[in-house]
Amino acid sequence: MISSIIIDRIIETALEEDLTQAGDITSQALFDGSEQAEASIIIKQAGILCGIDIAERTFLKVDPSLTIEIIKYDGQKVDECDIAAKIKGSSRSILTAERTALNFVMHLSGIASQTAFYIDKIKQTNAKLCDTRKTTPGLRGLEKYAVSCGGGSNHRFGLYDAILIKDNHIAASGGIKQALDRVQRQVGHTVKIEIEVDTLEQLAQVIDHGGADIVMLDNFDVKDLEKAIAMINSRITSEASGGINLETIEKIAKTGVNYISVGAITHSAPALDIGLDLKNTK
Amino acid sequence: MISSIIIDRIIETALEEDLTQAGDITSQALFDGSEQAEASIIIKQAGILCGIDIAERTFLKVDPSLTIEIIKYDGQKVDECDIAAKIKGSSRSILTAERTALNFVMHLSGIASQTAFYIDKIKQTNAKLCDTRKTTPGLRGLEKYAVSCGGGSNHRFGLYDAILIKDNHIAASGGIKQALDRVQRQVGHTVKIEIEVDTLEQLAQVIDHGGADIVMLDNFDVKDLEKAIAMINSRITSEASGGINLETIEKIAKTGVNYISVGAITHSAPALDIGLDLKNTK
Amino acid sequence: MISSIIIDRIIETALEEDLTQAGDITSQALFDGSEQAEASIIIKQAGILCGIDIAERTFLKVDPSLTIEIIKYDGQKVDECDIAAKIKGSSRSILTAERTALNFVMHLSGIASQTAFYIDKIKQTNAKLCDTRKTTPGLRGLEKYAVSCGGGSNHRFGLYDAILIKDNHIAASGGIKQALDRVQRQVGHTVKIEIEVDTLEQLAQVIDHGGADIVMLDNFDVKDLEKAIAMINSRITSEASGGINLETIEKIAKTGVNYISVGAITHSAPALDIGLDLKNTK
Amino acid sequence: MISSIIIDRIIETALEEDLTQAGDITSQALFDGSEQAEASIIIKQAGILCGIDIAERTFLKVDPSLTIEIIKYDGQKVDECDIAAKIKGSSRSILTAERTALNFVMHLSGIASQTAFYIDKIKQTNAKLCDTRKTTPGLRGLEKYAVSCGGGSNHRFGLYDAILIKDNHIAASGGIKQALDRVQRQVGHTVKIEIEVDTLEQLAQVIDHGGADIVMLDNFDVKDLEKAIAMINSRITSEASGGINLETIEKIAKTGVNYISVGAITHSAPALDIGLDLKNTK
Amino acid sequence: MISSIIIDRIIETALEEDLTQAGDITSQALFDGSEQAEASIIIKQAGILCGIDIAERTFLKVDPSLTIEIIKYDGQKVDECDIAAKIKGSSRSILTAERTALNFVMHLSGIASQTAFYIDKIKQTNAKLCDTRKTTPGLRGLEKYAVSCGGGSNHRFGLYDAILIKDNHIAASGGIKQALDRVQRQVGHTVKIEIEVDTLEQLAQVIDHGGADIVMLDNFDVKDLEKAIAMINSRITSEASGGINLETIEKIAKTGVNYISVGAITHSAPALDIGLDLKNTK
Amino acid sequence: MISSIIIDRIIETALEEDLTQAGDITSQALFDGSEQAEASIIIKQAGILCGIDIAERTFLKVDPSLTIEIIKYDGQKVDECDIAAKIKGSSRSILTAERTALNFVMHLSGIASQTAFYIDKIKQTNAKLCDTRKTTPGLRGLEKYAVSCGGGSNHRFGLYDAILIKDNHIAASGGIKQALDRVQRQVGHTVKIEIEVDTLEQLAQVIDHGGADIVMLDNFDVKDLEKAIAMINSRITSEASGGINLETIEKIAKTGVNYISVGAITHSAPALDIGLDLKNTK
Repeated sequence: MISSIIIDRIIETALEEDLTQAGDITSQALFDGSEQAEASIIIKQAGILCGIDIAERTFLKVDPSLTIEIIKYDGQKVDECDIAAKIKGSSRSILTAERTALNFVMHLSGIASQTAFYIDKIKQTNAKLCDTRKTTPGLRGLEKYAVSCGGGSNHRFGLYDAILIKDNHIAASGGIKQALDRVQRQVGHTVKIEIEVDTLEQLAQVIDHGGADIVMLDNFDVKDLEKAIAMINSRITSEASGGINLETIEKIAKTGVNYISVGAITHSAPALDIGLDLKNTK
Repeated sequence: MISSIIIDRIIETALEEDLTQAGDITSQALFDGSEQAEASIIIKQAGILCGIDIAERTFLKVDPSLTIEIIKYDGQKVDECDIAAKIKGSSRSILTAERTALNFVMHLSGIASQTAFYIDKIKQTNAKLCDTRKTTPGLRGLEKYAVSCGGGSNHRFGLYDAILIKDNHIAASGGIKQALDRVQRQVGHTVKIEIEVDTLEQLAQVIDHGGADIVMLDNFDVKDLEKAIAMINSRITSEASGGINLETIEKIAKTGVNYISVGAITHSAPALDIGLDLKNTK
Repeated sequence: MISSIIIDRIIETALEEDLTQAGDITSQALFDGSEQAEASIIIKQAGILCGIDIAERTFLKVDPSLTIEIIKYDGQKVDECDIAAKIKGSSRSILTAERTALNFVMHLSGIASQTAFYIDKIKQTNAKLCDTRKTTPGLRGLEKYAVSCGGGSNHRFGLYDAILIKDNHIAASGGIKQALDRVQRQVGHTVKIEIEVDTLEQLAQVIDHGGADIVMLDNFDVKDLEKAIAMINSRITSEASGGINLETIEKIAKTGVNYISVGAITHSAPALDIGLDLKNTK
Repeated sequence: MISSIIIDRIIETALEEDLTQAGDITSQALFDGSEQAEASIIIKQAGILCGIDIAERTFLKVDPSLTIEIIKYDGQKVDECDIAAKIKGSSRSILTAERTALNFVMHLSGIASQTAFYIDKIKQTNAKLCDTRKTTPGLRGLEKYAVSCGGGSNHRFGLYDAILIKDNHIAASGGIKQALDRVQRQVGHTVKIEIEVDTLEQLAQVIDHGGADIVMLDNFDVKDLEKAIAMINSRITSEASGGINLETIEKIAKTGVNYISVGAITHSAPALDIGLDLKNTK
Repeated sequence: MISSIIIDRIIETALEEDLTQAGDITSQALFDGSEQAEASIIIKQAGILCGIDIAERTFLKVDPSLTIEIIKYDGQKVDECDIAAKIKGSSRSILTAERTALNFVMHLSGIASQTAFYIDKIKQTNAKLCDTRKTTPGLRGLEKYAVSCGGGSNHRFGLYDAILIKDNHIAASGGIKQALDRVQRQVGHTVKIEIEVDTLEQLAQVIDHGGADIVMLDNFDVKDLEKAIAMINSRITSEASGGINLETIEKIAKTGVNYISVGAITHSAPALDIGLDLKNTK
Repeated sequence: MISSIIIDRIIETALEEDLTQAGDITSQALFDGSEQAEASIIIKQAGILCGIDIAERTFLKVDPSLTIEIIKYDGQKVDECDIAAKIKGSSRSILTAERTALNFVMHLSGIASQTAFYIDKIKQTNAKLCDTRKTTPGLRGLEKYAVSCGGGSNHRFGLYDAILIKDNHIAASGGIKQALDRVQRQVGHTVKIEIEVDTLEQLAQVIDHGGADIVMLDNFDVKDLEKAIAMINSRITSEASGGINLETIEKIAKTGVNYISVGAITHSAPALDIGLDLKNTK
């Protein structure tokens, strides 16, 4: 899970954009603050839950006197009509926090669920699914956490924690050998080096060089991918990427590639439908 | 468009999550900063463009010496292979900014395009499509802007700029009359009052009261919606909501309802596929 | 009341400007932290109290171990010598927080009290007093809350939550009809439209158009205001504005106008005199 | 003038509270951004100008392409109908920034003007007027700058930059001697020590001790003040404080006291009336 | 001690640079959160402790459920093998916070210890050691607190809380008299005035003028310093500065100078060696 | 170099702590802003320069109209009396920025120079020097950049970008095999795994397991280190750590170990002496 200082800032930003200065003018007009309620976060669509802790923190940020019982946990499979959590306390506070809390849990559960769909297709293989940097600006840490809740593995978090040499880098460096040489000289010993190749010829150069930890096989068709895996012969970690979807992923996985990275699990996952039911108790 | 101070903060947050302290370690290792390139933002899927200005600001935030030519504008229809913008300058800067810039424009164009799909279904009617508060935490302002680029109308921005009395508010207030009375007393004269109803009986009470500017007809089937529109008889602005999708929206629109609010255009729009091609020029 | 995240930030900013890094060097030099005291917030001038919760939060932000008993509440009438709250705990903490806490409560009570003076003049009429955007930069939310504590109504909170078409907008748009047409096309259905008029002729155009929810009658004399109210005939909400003061407000109110907006209640309200008495108990 | 980093933050906060996410919805609906205008900041009430640079920065923060000509400077005497500054550029930008810019300049000019009124009463004497820490939360630096524009002198900026031993500190320390001894031991040599006294007996103890740089004569009547000044005999800087107003300040000043501190010049100064006139030029 | 709002921000910044989004990936991979441990902060080198409260806040910021027992306090002399504090609770939380907490206490104890070394050299004299503004960017408040824990006195905290007229100021002003005259006119009565002199001639001018509270004798050799102290004859506070080190400070102090300012105690103090020992208890 | 958004924030924080609200009261009192000067940043002690760009940004942040000519670059060897940069413009701005700019460049050059001292000892060997996470809170990115300017290599930047399994992790996991197994299962394929061993027995287990990329040989004496290097036989990257200093580093390096990590180059590097000379030109 990402660091709590950052999570708190994300939640505060989200609450501020919903409240600004005037706050929840509807609840302020209708409630005097003494009304009590019991609310349930209800799953309306089967999937993998993610973000229920974020939802809890959101409710508590609005009103620390609310009591929240978490029933389903992040990473758990949930079905329609499941209750994920129960909240008790001021009606006004619950209704003020509702939308922001649900927006987090719907968005993150959507990603976790989409991840699980992809993994389901490749569960008979040894390939692992991983994410990309194609995430929603400001929410990458949370979205990568959602991917792991859905059973996926995380690729690098940003430009800072691993080397990935792409085609443009290779072109500007004068070739694969030059790029790998330079990176090896410059980079600290705690950093892994990944390089993207578009052809089997390029792959051969990478294998010859010996300086890469991971090779990204970009937009390879299944036949070339099989050849590539044979050439690599387990000496380098292999990763397939490029427009892979629910239809194509199984064949890709069966080639024996180690990792398959899919941008769609973060950038195009539909939200999971989740709602809040509230009963006024006083 | 949302205020530039907020946009700058969103872009800075996004760049920071991609760079943190170490920065783009790949480009730093491979480039000395003198390399020059020309890059194009290429549309890979037809849709409505949104966020090209945000992309421009992202590139300039990374390196103010880059020059950017915008070719396609926000709200414009774009087709596969269209070039949306060209960027010239330091290869290192362009590659460092690339992913963050694309993440914005892919996400926002996805929303604008999804909005346009829905509107296309109702273009023969007088109904207007509008968004909801079911947006990605931290990006609501941008996403509502994307909806307007797609031709949609904006519902309230948050809890602060309009009254929306929902079922729970009504229950806690002792009834529709009591809720509307109380809100009318409390709220300033510049604020509109919307109330949600689930039945025609409730609608009758709202009409009788006369205090609501807008009535949200939640989860009404087409038949009841037609009756509701007849009952309202143009005295109150009407809005249909509740699980409306691309299959159902046309029938809803034909009832004569004024507005149709759809959460999916923001919370479940897949990203529009957009890439960056770079040619090293020196 | 405005959102607590924003209130916390305002209080922290205020404490930081009083403390910066070195902190309260007098109390640090004189106290070792073990000294205990009881303090009272004493009203020194009759008026309407506002900000006592902000004062409480300020003391607790400096030292969460202080205990505070609130005796008079926001919106309550207070007289000279009334005790608004009692604070117990570390002398050092109380004295460090004192000035910042009092600055809030004196400023906000000044606004609430000034608002009440104006309302007292019009209490026999149906007119409501409302505020403007002429507020102290950074404190608008709190000042509008103070206005409501004083019995006033809130005009829009900012440029974002209601339309107000002023003379310059009209001129630039080519006339009242053009401006109203354009705004109606552009603006969402949850936003109210107000337009400023300077003459009865302009008012007639606004009434004819039918697109405005509120008309601001700017700098109308009493005679013209009476004519305007007759012309409007309850079809549009009316608001008088422009240099209205304690001498003129009653006559304005008697014309039957719905709202009277007065900038002076926020931008020129003198602080209410409030102090802190402290008894060292150990 | 206070540091520009802090000023920028104050201006950004002020603009954000007026714009939030949706921005200036009126100008956005009515203008396409190409409209040009010339605007003048017009003085509507004689006084001392303060904040015109802040106004300039506010306009430029909204739109760096505006051009601003400053005609009257901070600290200058201005009369009704004077033009303080002219702004040229986008009508939309000018109108969006107008209110925030004016709120600064009206508030700060109000303080500068009020300061000048007080100084006018004592200009025949050697006494200097100074401010207090009774300022608007978040704006102390700007308000102290306004005091200096009005001809006043600044007391300490916060709890951090000078020692001020008040009655409660003395009581908790066991007496004046003990308090001064302790402070002298603890505090660095670059910090001045001021002590408040309520009686001539206390003053005698302070003079005997010799450790105070400044003595605050709190709530002394004119007769006792004269005695105090005689006793001090120029050995310590003297400061009168406590409920001094425009009626009483001259007599106080004539006693020969060095400084007179007045909270009302910051906490109760009415805004100076200043407006913006705009001519659409295209 | 510096204000807690600022301390919290410094700690949060430090934790964020160690954690960013992904957090402590080692502890997350190895621990499920239920593991419990007892840890001790162990002194590995004799010196003066400083920052143990900051360390405590750092642990609690990572995990408020940790319990911390402080055994040695800030300002206390500590020896090798002393235990400064004990921490109990989640192994994962302790290990995540460890490095950041230790970085604070090692750095600040280094400064306190270095300060104590210098003071030890001058303890037989009346001279006091004080710090400068040569501090680590962002940590000045904490470092000045460390100096005071080591027994030193604080010079001004920044450019804002005392006047220090240096050679360049004098040159630009046209001479010592002109500079002091101008400063006396401009500056508030709560601010002390210090002036730097490089020669006995300059010192004579400062003494003649009478407007300076403190004179900084910059780079004076011992002989000139003795003459200077004689000339000053206790009328002005004297301060020696300029490249003073552990070898030269005693002779400087014996001249009778009041203060000796040394930049090295903050900018070049080596960290005190302090570690954390952890025993897993479950 | 670390990301410019973060650098700007660090510089702003540093300027704010030196200026707060009142600003540079000395320069404000003495200068009217029209005075012009030429200043030089002068090296007073031989070493490696680092932070000259940060100094430039600091001057420009205070006053964008200053012109700065950089003469010596980061990473360059500098000698006493070298001029590192020249600044022209307002005397007031230069003097206001001086201390903060110098504090950065002195601190970072101190680290770069200390790094170079260590590297000089091992230049005849193949070992590389690297840093640790023992850095000044808030400045890690800059300090690691300084290490690279001094010729050193960077270890991981934080807890987030590489796995480092320490003794406590091993103990809590039930052994080396269990710890490595678990980490391999949990961690993404772009992350390197380092493990600390204290004995040759532990080393043997690590080699057998095969899951570690790097082994940290903690507090090994030279004899054991030689044995370890032989055992490893180039299969894993080796790193020596633990109290290594200028006396011991050469022997350590000659064992053939790949990396040597030294905390003292960041936490105990004395500042490099650097000053600013200013000539008033008008």
